[in-house]
Amino acid sequence: MSLLADLLSTVFKRRYRALASAQKDDRPLSELAEDLMGSAGEISGLALADEMLSRFKRLDDDDKLAFFGYISDAMDIEPERLRQALDAYEKHPSKASYRAFSEAAEPRRHEFLRRLNGVPGATGQLVHMRAELLRLAGQDSRMAPLDLDFRHLFASWFNRGFLVLRPINWESPAHILEKIIAYEAVHAISSWDDLRRRLEPADRRCFAFFHPAMPDEPLIFVEVALTQGVPNSIQSLLAEDRMAIAADQANTAVFYSISNCQKGLASISFGNSLIKQVAADLAAAMPELTTFVTLSPIPSLSIWREEQGLQPPDRNDPELARDLAAYYLLHAKAKGDQPFDPVARFHLGNGAMVHAVHAEADLSDKGMAQSDGVMVNYLYDLDQVGSNHELYVSTKEVVASAEVKKQAEDGKRHLGQKSQHD
Amino acid sequence: MSLLADLLSTVFKRRYRALASAQKDDRPLSELAEDLMGSAGEISGLALADEMLSRFKRLDDDDKLAFFGYISDAMDIEPERLRQALDAYEKHPSKASYRAFSEAAEPRRHEFLRRLNGVPGATGQLVHMRAELLRLAGQDSRMAPLDLDFRHLFASWFNRGFLVLRPINWESPAHILEKIIAYEAVHAISSWDDLRRRLEPADRRCFAFFHPAMPDEPLIFVEVALTQGVPNSIQSLLAEDRMAIAADQANTAVFYSISNCQKGLASISFGNSLIKQVAADLAAAMPELTTFVTLSPIPSLSIWREEQGLQPPDRNDPELARDLAAYYLLHAKAKGDQPFDPVARFHLGNGAMVHAVHAEADLSDKGMAQSDGVMVNYLYDLDQVGSNHELYVSTKEVVASAEVKKQAEDGKRHLGQKSQHD
Amino acid sequence: MSLLADLLSTVFKRRYRALASAQKDDRPLSELAEDLMGSAGEISGLALADEMLSRFKRLDDDDKLAFFGYISDAMDIEPERLRQALDAYEKHPSKASYRAFSEAAEPRRHEFLRRLNGVPGATGQLVHMRAELLRLAGQDSRMAPLDLDFRHLFASWFNRGFLVLRPINWESPAHILEKIIAYEAVHAISSWDDLRRRLEPADRRCFAFFHPAMPDEPLIFVEVALTQGVPNSIQSLLAEDRMAIAADQANTAVFYSISNCQKGLASISFGNSLIKQVAADLAAAMPELTTFVTLSPIPSLSIWREEQGLQPPDRNDPELARDLAAYYLLHAKAKGDQPFDPVARFHLGNGAMVHAVHAEADLSDKGMAQSDGVMVNYLYDLDQVGSNHELYVSTKEVVASAEVKKQAEDGKRHLGQKSQHD
Amino acid sequence: MSLLADLLSTVFKRRYRALASAQKDDRPLSELAEDLMGSAGEISGLALADEMLSRFKRLDDDDKLAFFGYISDAMDIEPERLRQALDAYEKHPSKASYRAFSEAAEPRRHEFLRRLNGVPGATGQLVHMRAELLRLAGQDSRMAPLDLDFRHLFASWFNRGFLVLRPINWESPAHILEKIIAYEAVHAISSWDDLRRRLEPADRRCFAFFHPAMPDEPLIFVEVALTQGVPNSIQSLLAEDRMAIAADQANTAVFYSISNCQKGLASISFGNSLIKQVAADLAAAMPELTTFVTLSPIPSLSIWREEQGLQPPDRNDPELARDLAAYYLLHAKAKGDQPFDPVARFHLGNGAMVHAVHAEADLSDKGMAQSDGVMVNYLYDLDQVGSNHELYVSTKEVVASAEVKKQAEDGKRHLGQKSQHD
Repeated sequence: MSLLADLLSTVFKRRYRALASAQKDDRPLSELAEDLMGSAGEISGLALADEMLSRFKRLDDDDKLAFFGYISDAMDIEPERLRQALDAYEKHPSKASYRAFSEAAEPRRHEFLRRLNGVPGATGQLVHMRAELLRLAGQDSRMAPLDLDFRHLFASWFNRGFLVLRPINWESPAHILEKIIAYEAVHAISSWDDLRRRLEPADRRCFAFFHPAMPDEPLIFVEVALTQGVPNSIQSLLAEDRMAIAADQANTAVFYSISNCQKGLASISFGNSLIKQVAADLAAAMPELTTFVTLSPIPSLSIWREEQGLQPPDRNDPELARDLAAYYLLHAKAKGDQPFDPVARFHLGNGAMVHAVHAEADLSDKGMAQSDGVMVNYLYDLDQVGSNHELYVSTKEVVASAEVKKQAEDGKRHLGQKSQHD
Repeated sequence: MSLLADLLSTVFKRRYRALASAQKDDRPLSELAEDLMGSAGEISGLALADEMLSRFKRLDDDDKLAFFGYISDAMDIEPERLRQALDAYEKHPSKASYRAFSEAAEPRRHEFLRRLNGVPGATGQLVHMRAELLRLAGQDSRMAPLDLDFRHLFASWFNRGFLVLRPINWESPAHILEKIIAYEAVHAISSWDDLRRRLEPADRRCFAFFHPAMPDEPLIFVEVALTQGVPNSIQSLLAEDRMAIAADQANTAVFYSISNCQKGLASISFGNSLIKQVAADLAAAMPELTTFVTLSPIPSLSIWREEQGLQPPDRNDPELARDLAAYYLLHAKAKGDQPFDPVARFHLGNGAMVHAVHAEADLSDKGMAQSDGVMVNYLYDLDQVGSNHELYVSTKEVVASAEVKKQAEDGKRHLGQKSQHD
Repeated sequence: MSLLADLLSTVFKRRYRALASAQKDDRPLSELAEDLMGSAGEISGLALADEMLSRFKRLDDDDKLAFFGYISDAMDIEPERLRQALDAYEKHPSKASYRAFSEAAEPRRHEFLRRLNGVPGATGQLVHMRAELLRLAGQDSRMAPLDLDFRHLFASWFNRGFLVLRPINWESPAHILEKIIAYEAVHAISSWDDLRRRLEPADRRCFAFFHPAMPDEPLIFVEVALTQGVPNSIQSLLAEDRMAIAADQANTAVFYSISNCQKGLASISFGNSLIKQVAADLAAAMPELTTFVTLSPIPSLSIWREEQGLQPPDRNDPELARDLAAYYLLHAKAKGDQPFDPVARFHLGNGAMVHAVHAEADLSDKGMAQSDGVMVNYLYDLDQVGSNHELYVSTKEVVASAEVKKQAEDGKRHLGQKSQHD
Repeated sequence: MSLLADLLSTVFKRRYRALASAQKDDRPLSELAEDLMGSAGEISGLALADEMLSRFKRLDDDDKLAFFGYISDAMDIEPERLRQALDAYEKHPSKASYRAFSEAAEPRRHEFLRRLNGVPGATGQLVHMRAELLRLAGQDSRMAPLDLDFRHLFASWFNRGFLVLRPINWESPAHILEKIIAYEAVHAISSWDDLRRRLEPADRRCFAFFHPAMPDEPLIFVEVALTQGVPNSIQSLLAEDRMAIAADQANTAVFYSISNCQKGLASISFGNSLIKQVAADLAAAMPELTTFVTLSPIPSLSIWREEQGLQPPDRNDPELARDLAAYYLLHAKAKGDQPFDPVARFHLGNGAMVHAVHAEADLSDKGMAQSDGVMVNYLYDLDQVGSNHELYVSTKEVVASAEVKKQAEDGKRHLGQKSQHD
């Protein structure tokens, strides 16, 4: 059937091109936009929307900004109209008055974006449009409402219930795999051979969320290693010459890399769903697995250390590096009494706990620079994530193993000595 | 692979049951709803949502009404809060003030329904929930805002760009086919054998829109006959003993039945997309097809005729019945100068034209009762639907063939004579 | 994608028709057959083969017989040529002499049937061709070699390693399901509603073997009920008003019906593979299942009973009916010391054992007529089938439970009394 | 569903391992083989076959040879038994005597290989087994009968009617694509980027035959370029910086590389089916395509030239190189009056004609060495392949365009001058 698809795609392209050629329209994009909003039905709407989407892609940055400016300004809410509609609804609640209120309460650009999305394949282009908005106007507060509207729509369209979890493996299509290579953000994949080492061995897994309207684009993916015991360094986990084990020899699933793929979906969170879903599925399929942990970087440790005026720990004293990191993870705070470390915030917010801290765990340049080579395992105990999460939300207490608490104590003592010496 | 799915479903059910059993929660639904709104993350959210959805299904009608009442009242907009947020945004437009405004401008039940939708499989249950709302409180104006909110969300979720067109044929899964039997609203399907006659012959087609989150539920479907020339009666089209022709012997595609499937998606329009998409696809795949018409009922003809004080036309005078119907289609108006006939409104609004009118075209009891046995072909000329539509929208002029115009003239003359006689 | 397939099929049909029309060939089938054998390559071979296959279908019975007669006679082995080739190979074994021998040792019709099979879709037509041969010439010994050649080829083509096991359920395509209705040979399926009761409930399963070249044609299927404990009657198993149980509440899988679908594959055995494969798959997917039994008819019990000059047992004495059946199953022999009962031969040959015998277990007319209402459970103990089978093959001993042995003793005693009385 | 497959594979592996562990069997392979032949049913047969297949893979070359020797000798035909069976059948033709004859006429290793093939996944392993046979004993005439038996079985199992044509593109699974890289035999693919250039552009296609029992292994594939006009060099066709054209801008499909993938399927011909099927499918799907040609190497030109005692043509005289090649293609003969060039034999035998010859068409080292840089287009005119083929088979006449004939004349003249000079 994929032969049929292949052959037929030509037929379809021919047809669409025929349709498209009938629709060339040289008016300014803003005019097309108003036309799209004015079109009573779908008759010319899809053609207009299609034209606008393909036109947008060819704009230069200035014109893109002008376009964003237009829909920011001309399609904003109209406060006076809204006030009146609100008053009317409050005075005489009815279907008609609520409908009028609803329409006034939403900026016109919501409906504009929904109409653009009527074109098959538009969703991915709208995600890209927001990525362009963030790139070009990320700091421009006049565009912030437009960005919030994008987010609002995307949060609804990319609702967890619409997402599909799919495994990524060496049988996956090449055009998906090349995106995995491109998007891996934690431990870079250097080549197709490197990719194969992450996907093909019997003790490796990878899973991604997809949206049905963007079937060729992973939204987020997580790489998993199946191991015997909790691993203490990324080097050993990814060593080229390591021996794979059979999947059912493993008792531990290690989430060692999780990467978002779509800049245009920034602030739409999929990560905690993904980890929990994958953990639950693996647990169901492989009863031998009893432990679900991450092997995570500590990206802001050096920043904090420098803020504290501390020197990098002696490379000959890995224990010290570890203890300082343990202290950092349990006690270093950002505003709102949250953990200083962004990855810690993510996993602790998900209900994970700090399970173990390892020195000399990431000897890459990046690893040494950001965390003096230290890494951490966050543990996802599916029976505990709920209560851990509640505790974390209500008290901001960081749940940690006894061992890590002890190491943090040692780290604290060292810090105290340090400041006494100073 | 479908074997794997089958076998594995047991594994999943086991797991979900295990999760579910941990979540039994006897508190009132309204309390759960507030809890769901309060849950900071996804931790307990999905479990709560799942519990609420399955609890809802078991409620009796009174309790369902009470639940709808609760989310109508307690999750409505808060006018005072909205006014303040609007003022603040108007005075100091910023990301923060817009965010606050956006949250206040939307009733809390929007977010509530989105959270329910986080559960895999929830979308279909929410569509059913609205069907229940319409059944139980369709006339209750206090519930109208809630219904409008459902519609608003569904219009976004069931955006044309998210829908998938799939053929329905005798190779389709039985659980889909039994829904086709159940939902056919125009010319009832009496049995599986009857269904087979609609799907299996080489000159029959059927297509449906599906949403990826409801893969087992057609949203709307259209039945198509491939014919030589435009057919003039439904009896001949559906005759049990007719001879099928080869698909490439046909020059005409006849859309003879179009049925919505989901009561919970009332007022979300898919029909015009469906007809045009199917027509375009058939045209691309079968170059022999040159004519795309409907064979449509005229459901309100008798109502109008009675309103006019006219007797049913003599069954021995089919020409008269036809001419009156032609007059009716071209000139009988409802409010807003729209065609009186709802099916005419639909097809003319899509840009179709009145192509031909046939007496003795539907001799069933229903056909005789509603339109004295007359049926009509609306013609979809893909090159004309755009301009027809514009004309229709701007002038309400009904585009018709010369032949039908002539028949309408004759019908008018008869009416005139009739009133002279009266 | 199934839409694409649907649309594209027209394209393909057009092309094939174009090819076909170029190939119309009015010569006698035997002449075409010789032509096919003479064609050096594939150039005209496929067209010839296609022509012959479609011509065959339109032949009347006499012409079919004549065609079978032709390939029986004219394409038989040539003894003299074979003797010479054999002598030559024996004297001078070489690649060339072995090749010559191989060609002479095989009747030409082998290659003839293989060439027919080059046409896509031909395999199913060849299976049908053999069904016609069996229907028209089943008793004609002159055709027996041709039939053996069909069997020989089919045994190779339908090798277990080429078959695919697929579940049949209420999500299966209708055109497959209607074949299940048609082919069910043990407990007839009376309607689509009846079929649904066999497939849809959570405690029902059905599996079939398919061949990749005949994807729309099940070869053999087995119906399975998941139960608590071993069932003792077909009425209770298939009762319309029974309550389904959840799949994981079951501890027993009951194979209550197994049906061959293709007359043209007579004597090609799939049944024992199917039962064992399904049992192994169910065991892997549902660890709760601990017992795998059949609920089987005893089709030749009445025949044997009459041969013994016995009256039907009193309907008020079910115990007696059961004991006689137990005796029959354990001790009634056909030639070769095999069990008299064909179903017993099948399951015992597979390594199953006689587990339990039930009176009043099939009260249908057919059940009463063939076995006085008695049915039997054969037990498939996956750990024992191997050794049971060896024992059965070497000693013809029927393995049975202690309970059934006891009942057989009682049955024997009754028989003894009976003959004393006579 | 592919997630389910992934997860479930663990379940299956666990089960199979459990079965397997029960079957460890240390006896010599020959003894297992006899056991397999002796096993009455499937009971222990599959386990034995499975054990033998996995044992074979671990054998060293000597043991493999010994194994091949065993089945060559001990499972050969028994001439005396065959003679008697033949005599008996000739004297008294009957079902029984024909069955006895059939069994005697086939060496036991046929049935042996069929039984091995009963294991799911065995087919690919048997193909590999023959590849090993060819590698280890390709020249050993004592093994030739065994090899012929493999071929005989494979010709039946890999019958054209069982093969599936599938497109290979950038959406294909990576584990298939890496095989395309590995198997490309004509113009090597140097990297994944190189592969992408062959598959992803809109004017490139690739198709392969697969067998359902070896879904991960292409059998043969052809690479196609869509072009405007017939190309005259491989450099321009594969240039890294070339501009792709839209598929519907092309009027010509160029088969520029065709590669067999399975050494174990040597002498089983798929190539002519593949080219003709792909040409027919492309013609049906893209009506703009009017010309189907190859761009083919001339692998034996230099060999022939040297046999003729000719020097390589002056690199400054490409016309001469071309004319000599034209002469060679039309007139240089191997035994049996067939073309000297193996690629010419293949395409001319398929019914193609020599369309054009190009100098400086393959400037790679390989191209210069084998054919002084000259390449050739063979034209597949679907309306002519039949008659071309007949002509070729009956008269060995090489069909060529007027232009090439003229060039061949010039080449001949040059050769004549050359020998006059000598």
